[in-house]
Amino acid sequence: MTMTAELSHVARMADRAAGFQPSPVRAVFDVSMQPGMISLAGGNPYLAALPMEKIAAMVGDVVAARGLDALQYGSGAGTEELAELICRVMELEGISASPENVQITAGSQMGLELVTKLFCNPGDVVIAEGPTYVGALGVFEGFQAEVAHVAMDEDGVVPETLQATISALKAAGKTIKFFYTIPNFNNPSGISLSLERRQQVVDICRAEGVAIVEDNPYGLLSFDGDLKPALHTLDPDNVFYLGSFSKIFAPGLRTGWVVAPKEVRGRLQIASEATTICPSVLSQMVVEQYITGFDWRGQIDTFSAVYAARCHATLAALAEHMPEGTHWTTPTGGFFTWVTLPEGCDTDQVLAVAIEAGVVFVPGSAFYADGGGRNQLRIAFSYAPADQLAEGVKRLAEAIKAALGQAS
Amino acid sequence: MTMTAELSHVARMADRAAGFQPSPVRAVFDVSMQPGMISLAGGNPYLAALPMEKIAAMVGDVVAARGLDALQYGSGAGTEELAELICRVMELEGISASPENVQITAGSQMGLELVTKLFCNPGDVVIAEGPTYVGALGVFEGFQAEVAHVAMDEDGVVPETLQATISALKAAGKTIKFFYTIPNFNNPSGISLSLERRQQVVDICRAEGVAIVEDNPYGLLSFDGDLKPALHTLDPDNVFYLGSFSKIFAPGLRTGWVVAPKEVRGRLQIASEATTICPSVLSQMVVEQYITGFDWRGQIDTFSAVYAARCHATLAALAEHMPEGTHWTTPTGGFFTWVTLPEGCDTDQVLAVAIEAGVVFVPGSAFYADGGGRNQLRIAFSYAPADQLAEGVKRLAEAIKAALGQAS
Repeated sequence: MTMTAELSHVARMADRAAGFQPSPVRAVFDVSMQPGMISLAGGNPYLAALPMEKIAAMVGDVVAARGLDALQYGSGAGTEELAELICRVMELEGISASPENVQITAGSQMGLELVTKLFCNPGDVVIAEGPTYVGALGVFEGFQAEVAHVAMDEDGVVPETLQATISALKAAGKTIKFFYTIPNFNNPSGISLSLERRQQVVDICRAEGVAIVEDNPYGLLSFDGDLKPALHTLDPDNVFYLGSFSKIFAPGLRTGWVVAPKEVRGRLQIASEATTICPSVLSQMVVEQYITGFDWRGQIDTFSAVYAARCHATLAALAEHMPEGTHWTTPTGGFFTWVTLPEGCDTDQVLAVAIEAGVVFVPGSAFYADGGGRNQLRIAFSYAPADQLAEGVKRLAEAIKAALGQAS
Repeated sequence: MTMTAELSHVARMADRAAGFQPSPVRAVFDVSMQPGMISLAGGNPYLAALPMEKIAAMVGDVVAARGLDALQYGSGAGTEELAELICRVMELEGISASPENVQITAGSQMGLELVTKLFCNPGDVVIAEGPTYVGALGVFEGFQAEVAHVAMDEDGVVPETLQATISALKAAGKTIKFFYTIPNFNNPSGISLSLERRQQVVDICRAEGVAIVEDNPYGLLSFDGDLKPALHTLDPDNVFYLGSFSKIFAPGLRTGWVVAPKEVRGRLQIASEATTICPSVLSQMVVEQYITGFDWRGQIDTFSAVYAARCHATLAALAEHMPEGTHWTTPTGGFFTWVTLPEGCDTDQVLAVAIEAGVVFVPGSAFYADGGGRNQLRIAFSYAPADQLAEGVKRLAEAIKAALGQAS
């Protein structure tokens, strides 16, 4: 009886539900929890670098002083106070935005969900870097949008390839809704879009009538202090900006935002209210107090230094252990490096061997909608300490050598 | 240039975006904030009844003791600890569920969004009570589902009408995806489904292959202690249950849940992860500590007593002031009563007069997808104190009399 009822529910689901399949990435994260396992998989921020006692006291104070508001329903747009502070945070990357253009969401993931819901009919095309954020692919699939990847080199997406991709899609009669990009310390590649190309990318998209969705959770986590101007600064009318406190403060609060032109932002609010009524007021007030009462810029420097050291340890271990013919990116910020193995070496197969050897990572195919990335993989260096990263890379190199048929 | 860019964004939006129009309800809530205005509009819980100092200390303790987890990413399903506590909460209404069937969400609004996303193609039909929750109508519209209303009498939805509606829709070739119902202290009507009809409704839906989405935020807020068994208890395989801590604890945390059969719950998790990655871990841990460390059942009794007294004051004022030919429901729990004016008296027009007189409410048409409810309105008695409710009803009665052309 149970079986029958369940089967009939599945049969009655919407067409889009066909895309709601368990991702192989989920299994990787489950494996990460096994004792003795070194995880190069999850992009978790290193929260032990936060002044937790002070934050705990601050959070208690928020509820003591403003509990009747913090625990109540709030504005569907988010609090005005936080929207103003968000504008100050964005100034660091050159963005000049008004609070009226800010929609606060339960994390920037939700910002992407809302933008996609607002713009994408089934069969519409989203252009994305190849590789791109696995969680973005889940959003696009959930609205039956097709994804066209544009290759990156060490300077980010290649403008000529972007232009050619747009032209080819249009020639094929496709409707392109937006170019989704993570221009800074891209997840998963660690690559940043060069200054020169930013203008080119913005110009191409403007000329072709393709909006840009700029996802920038890592932009402030630069190892050398170099902050490139956001794409939004170059064309505020055509770039929807997704921001997040998950990597510069705390993901457990689920607080992010979208910046968009007025007509778009108004509809995003309606879509947001349908999804969650309002963002968590407690979370918003905690972020407000964090930005106003703590040295949040100094904390970004602290985080960046931790990640820089871990990145350095990871790259050193890669240089020491990886077999010939393997190469990887050299990030200058963020959480990730992207490793390319010799052609034909399948990282889904390497993963099984690696797990036996006590290390997990996310295979490259997870970051492509089109089956790409099979000989690639992502290493997250944000969470594990440097010695574990080094040991993890060593184990990984052995698993790769085994897959390549080389003695370890 | 700005104008042009904005216009072109609107033109490029998805078909579903046509439904993302500002609701007239929004304007009502804005008006509520005016000085001197008495609001009978918003269904906000009365949080001043909470032991706020103790809660503040508890929230601080959560971060001090478990901050590295509370501020980090968590499971996409929600925490196992909270899922188990949710099962204990649901036992009060007879539900026997397993934590594996629980998907925690950023409020039960998000549960409804996910269920609708999972099941509804454009043109599919959702059956709902008439009137029903305005926020549910926004969800259905966002996925281009059509809504068919089923009338209620004082015992809730009429089973024969439900059966006739289903038969007529099927005869018209429509695909019905589920019956959305608020069986306890319905928002906006205050009506509860009688015990006898619960079995009939469940039987009809099972026989017709129509799932039930049971939305139950108010069920525990009974004025007389009478808790009817949830529809879920009668057919767990065919009833998806939406629960919420917003009315028994605090909406600002945005913590709710869905209970569903395994195959449905698994896909809800995938949809949930695409929307918010995970529910706020801080919020979940705060709720965990509230349920384990506070007299949460005693607090429900406290809340219920407050709402019962306010309901009593509201009904007494209605009896004293309302013109002849007006009638209203007599709730035995929850936040709302539903007022029906003489035929032809348009509550959208009454609203303008009422605002001049210093009182706002939500006109009945907001709670129908089909233009119904024009001579009806909702009064929320949950938030304003009894003397304000009485004065608000008096002002409202004068506005109605003015609209009816009677001397006040």
